[in-house]
Parts: sequence; C-alpha cells; structure tokens
Amino acid sequence: MSKGRVEAFSDGVFAVIITFLVFNMKVPSLADTAALLALIPVFLSYVLSFLYIGIYWNNHHHLFQAADRVSGKILWANLHLLFWLSLAPFATAWMGQNHFSPIPVAAYGCVLLFAGIAYFILTSCLVSQHGKDSKLAVSIGRDRKGRLSVALYLIAIPLAFMRTWAAYDLYFLVALMWLLPDRRIEKVLR
Amino acid sequence: MSKGRVEAFSDGVFAVIITFLVFNMKVPSLADTAALLALIPVFLSYVLSFLYIGIYWNNHHHLFQAADRVSGKILWANLHLLFWLSLAPFATAWMGQNHFSPIPVAAYGCVLLFAGIAYFILTSCLVSQHGKDSKLAVSIGRDRKGRLSVALYLIAIPLAFMRTWAAYDLYFLVALMWLLPDRRIEKVLR
Amino acid sequence: MSKGRVEAFSDGVFAVIITFLVFNMKVPSLADTAALLALIPVFLSYVLSFLYIGIYWNNHHHLFQAADRVSGKILWANLHLLFWLSLAPFATAWMGQNHFSPIPVAAYGCVLLFAGIAYFILTSCLVSQHGKDSKLAVSIGRDRKGRLSVALYLIAIPLAFMRTWAAYDLYFLVALMWLLPDRRIEKVLR
Amino acid sequence: MSKGRVEAFSDGVFAVIITFLVFNMKVPSLADTAALLALIPVFLSYVLSFLYIGIYWNNHHHLFQAADRVSGKILWANLHLLFWLSLAPFATAWMGQNHFSPIPVAAYGCVLLFAGIAYFILTSCLVSQHGKDSKLAVSIGRDRKGRLSVALYLIAIPLAFMRTWAAYDLYFLVALMWLLPDRRIEKVLR
Repeated sequence: MSKGRVEAFSDGVFAVIITFLVFNMKVPSLADTAALLALIPVFLSYVLSFLYIGIYWNNHHHLFQAADRVSGKILWANLHLLFWLSLAPFATAWMGQNHFSPIPVAAYGCVLLFAGIAYFILTSCLVSQHGKDSKLAVSIGRDRKGRLSVALYLIAIPLAFMRTWAAYDLYFLVALMWLLPDRRIEKVLR
Repeated sequence: MSKGRVEAFSDGVFAVIITFLVFNMKVPSLADTAALLALIPVFLSYVLSFLYIGIYWNNHHHLFQAADRVSGKILWANLHLLFWLSLAPFATAWMGQNHFSPIPVAAYGCVLLFAGIAYFILTSCLVSQHGKDSKLAVSIGRDRKGRLSVALYLIAIPLAFMRTWAAYDLYFLVALMWLLPDRRIEKVLR
Repeated sequence: MSKGRVEAFSDGVFAVIITFLVFNMKVPSLADTAALLALIPVFLSYVLSFLYIGIYWNNHHHLFQAADRVSGKILWANLHLLFWLSLAPFATAWMGQNHFSPIPVAAYGCVLLFAGIAYFILTSCLVSQHGKDSKLAVSIGRDRKGRLSVALYLIAIPLAFMRTWAAYDLYFLVALMWLLPDRRIEKVLR
Repeated sequence: MSKGRVEAFSDGVFAVIITFLVFNMKVPSLADTAALLALIPVFLSYVLSFLYIGIYWNNHHHLFQAADRVSGKILWANLHLLFWLSLAPFATAWMGQNHFSPIPVAAYGCVLLFAGIAYFILTSCLVSQHGKDSKLAVSIGRDRKGRLSVALYLIAIPLAFMRTWAAYDLYFLVALMWLLPDRRIEKVLR
C-alpha cells in the first residue's frame, strides 16, 4: 500500500486541528484593552497547543518520510493518534477558559499522554513492518525523547492538583525538548 | 479521468468531518469533575462516529487504490456518499446531547443506513466501469459485510424506539466488524 | 507554473465549504419529532447548496484537467471564484433559518450570480492563456450552460420578492441542468 | 527533504483559514434589509482578510515553487508564519464586530505585522539554504515590497488610535500593492 494518501489525509486533519485551536479564543464583544487582557490565559493555552500540533506534524512528516509502505494496521495506528490529537482543541479551550484550574490542566495532560502513547504505538507498528535494521528503525533508535515525554506527562498530571503552573511548565518543557527538529531521522536519511 | 483529485477532495472532506465531530463536545464553563462526567454521553457518541468516519476513509482508500479511472457518474456517487457522511457531526451531536433518546438514536441509524447504501452505489458504479473480472470487482466480491451492515441498520432503527441501547450496541457491532481492515482488497492486490 | 498546487488548495477550500454548510443545521436541544420537522427548511437549503458546491467542484475538476498551465492572473480569478463560494454557507443558513423569506432568497441568488460570473471570468482567463484552438477552448465552446445559468439567476433574484418559491425552484432547475456531468470536456479529452 | 508535504499541509491550513474568515459573519435572525446593512463592517473586514490570505497563499506558492528542498528550520519558519495567519479570523471578527474601533484595528495591524515579519524570516531561511546565487535568492532580490509592507504596518498601528479609517486604508493599500502577482519570481523562473 502506498503511503501517499495516508499522508494527505493526516495533513488534512493536522491542518484542521491546528486552525480549530484558535476558535477557542472567543471574539470579545467589547473593544477595549481589558477584553484583550482577559484573553491572555486562552492565548497561552493556544500557543502551547499550536506548538504541540506543530511538533506532531513535524515528527509525523519525518516518520513517514522514512517509511516505505503502510498496512491496514498502520492506518488504524495513525487514526488512533489523530483521535487523541483531535481532542486537543477541546482540552485547550477548557484549560484556557477556566484560567488553568487543576482539573482542566490534568485533563490536558491526559490528552498529551494518550497522544504520546499513540505515537509510540504508531512508530512500533512502522518499525515492526520495516524490520529492525531498516532505515526507519535505526533513525528512531530507542526513542528516548518519546519515553521521557510520557514519563514527564505522568509526573505533570498529578502535579496539576498540587502546583498547577508547574504542570503547565512541564508541558512547555516537553514541547521545547521536541522543538529541535528530529535530527536523528535527518541524519540517517543523509 | 485520473482519480488523483477525487481522492484529494474526498480526503479533505473526510479530514474536516472527522475533526468537526469533536466540536459537538461543548467546552463546559465549569472546571470540576461533574462537568467532565456530564460529557460522557457526548464522548461515547463521538468515539462511535470517529470509528465510522475512520472506517469509511479506510474502505474508500482501499476501494480507490484498486480503481484505475473514474467517470462523471463516479464523481457524483462519491459526492452522494460524502453528503450522508457530512450529516454525521449533526447526528452525533443530537444523539450525544440528548443522552441517547430514541428519536436521535434512530436518526443516527438513518444517516448510517443512507451512507451504507451510498457506499454500495459507489462500489457498483466502480465495478460496472472496471468490468466484472477486474481486480476491483474480484476484491469486492459479493460484499457480504456491506449487505450485512445495511441489514443490521434496518434492525437497529426500529429497535431504537424499544431498546435504545440495543440499537447503539448494534451500531457499535457493525463498526467492530469493519474495524478489521478490508483484507479482501489487500489480498487481491498482492 | 504548474497547476498542481492550485488544484490542491481549491480542493481544500471546496472540502471545507461543503462540510461547513451542514453547520447551519443547529443541533436542536429537544429530542422529539417536532425538532426534526423544524429542520426541514434548513435541510432543503443545505441540499441545494451541497449540490451547487458539488457542481462547482466537478466543473472545476474538469476545467483544470483540460488546462496545461496557470498564471498569476488565473490564480486570482480562481480565488475570486472561491470568495463567492465561501459566502455560500452564510447565504444558505440565512435562507434556511428564515424559512425562505424574500430577502435571504434574493441574497442567495446574488451569491450564485456572482459565483457564476466569477466562473465565467476564470474560464475566459484560461481560454485566453491556452489559445482559441486549444483542447480547453474547444471543450468549453460557447459555454451555453454558463450563460443560461446567469440569465436564470437574473430572473430569479427579482422573482424572489414576488413568488419566493419560484425563485428557489429556478435555483434548483439550474442545479439539475448542471448535475449531468460536463460531457463536453470529457468528449474532447477522448 | 522534499517540499511536497510542506506545501500540502500549508495549503490545508490556508484553505481552512480562508473559509473560517466568513464564520465571523454571524447569520442574522431577521430577514430584512437592516440585518443585511448591519453586516457591512463585518463584510468589509472579511474582504480585506480574504485578500490578505489570498496574497499570502499566492506568495507562498511562488516561493516554494522556486525552492528545491526544505530543512527542519524551514518547517518551523513556515509554522511560525501559519501561527500568525491563523489569528487572522479572530482579528478580523473583532475588528468587524466592533465597527472598526481603534484597539481592534490596531490589533489587526499587529497580526499583519507579525505575519509580515514571519514571512520575512521564512524567505531568509530559504535563501540561506539555497545560497545567495540561487534562482530563489535572485527572484526575491532585496524584497522591497516586504520591507515596505512592514514599514506601513508600523505606521498604521499607532495611526489606528488617531484616525482609525486611515489605518484601515493603509492595510488596504498594502494589499493592493501585493495584488499584482509576484512577477519577480515568475520572471526569473522563465
């Protein structure tokens, strides 16, 4: 099975999700500075989610670039990832509109956690199809960043009930860790 | 006529529909656990619809992979399918927000039924263009799964007025039956 | 300039517009038959607009299939068409939610009229670039259907203030006229 | 790294943004001329934003047509541009719904300013990767239009607090300046 249409469909879903995020920023009915300042928490959660969707698109792009072919199993592993990412606009809005209250911040972390696990499953499916010595498997390696992210989410979720902003900072830290493009795959491809 | 742009347009519509589904989950104004629990019926209907759109995209992907060319008639059979699928976000929201009341559950079944019939028409158009001995026709065969799905929808719709959850379970059963990737086409392609 | 990305972008816009149309059907808060019946006018306007966007996508597909290359002028003629089509969800909702009152029905006709003119401009730009003897120019010919559509819109718009449903019927008639796939271009391509 | 998927993803985001713009035009509950006239400021802001997104898509299309390959850095420079453009529907709605009050008009200018800077960064990244003597670098040249636009935004933003409509006129002027397709790149490509 060729990978072209999986990439096209995923790109479509990524594009809609990343643009939907901003719809959480409800247009204020007043035109003063106070209305703009009141948007700050929603804007902060928007920036974080935009980064995350950008990172996932970026990694997805690298991953499928290294892949040669897909199977029915991989199509569903990919849809599973998109399912959790599609919850991002909801989680972002709930977190932002409630000024980073503990429960929405923890819920946001759960969405990140499940998306992280789904990405891990997707890479495993791709590696098992391409073989352990394939370009793709070598470029992913032991996936330390992926494992570390999941571990940090697991710390951040309970932390949200104690020190909510520390949880937010952890989410941001994970995003920054990924912001560096995935040079591992680029290196192997060269 | 080449099939590339039909696939691209359909992928776009599938991507928008699957991401729109989650828009039914209205962001609660409160940040407590009760607000999250109140979302459970909407979330359940969301999961079911996500599965269905995923299945349709998957089968559509397989179907057009086996196709060589398209005609004006096929373009419209495809748009007809997308028409019924585009009603899925509406039907999903109505069902979820009304906690699976009989009429919305039956309406949801009608959308599934018409989408099932539309998919059947689309495959018939493709088979009649490619010939009965074509790779595509062989891979579809007698389309037992498709016929069974339509039969189960026809049972589920009246059932919704008597035992609403049994209807929901039937919808779920059909989805699970399709979740296994369409190995028939994959087999023939090899 | 290659035409691939213009097609991809247009497909994206068409896909979003056609899926946005259904968003006009607001999810009723009640789960009874009355709520479903109240949706009939909105549903009727939705069906009409879905047909129109489908027709435009279909014709656009045929037109660009016959085209070899695009220019900056054609990019803007294409965006101009998409501008008027992007107003379709708004016009559809206004017409449906107000039960086909004269002013919304006339406004809907204006959107159709300007989209028709924009399509005419787009074909003219493409013909002038490809030459009067090109495959594309021959396949479009004198564009009788396009001219007739614009004439019928011009009749329907004032008619909306006298016999509103007659205007709606005219819009439907034009759609049916186009529903037959544009065999002219298909014929020449063979 | 091939540029195909960056173009596809960007096209998807552009398509969603340009169609989302119209969602700011809330469907009036009344069906009279007054309801239509009340939409004029929202419509004006919609037209301006449609032009801007169209211009950005057009320039983006030309820019990547001249590009040969992309890097991780360019992917993020591209996402950075899309981030600012994704704020356009919000800024457009706030400006239109508040009848061009000073603060929303200035905020709209800020979004334009940051998008302009982001586009400048994107071209710089592409030029530095392709070399100063590349087709791409030559076709961009000193990017006078880009620099002039940023300068005009910087004038328009404070102007919004004094003569709001003059700021709007400046935004329109910049759009008109870009409406002419970017012949520089077309010229070099020939």
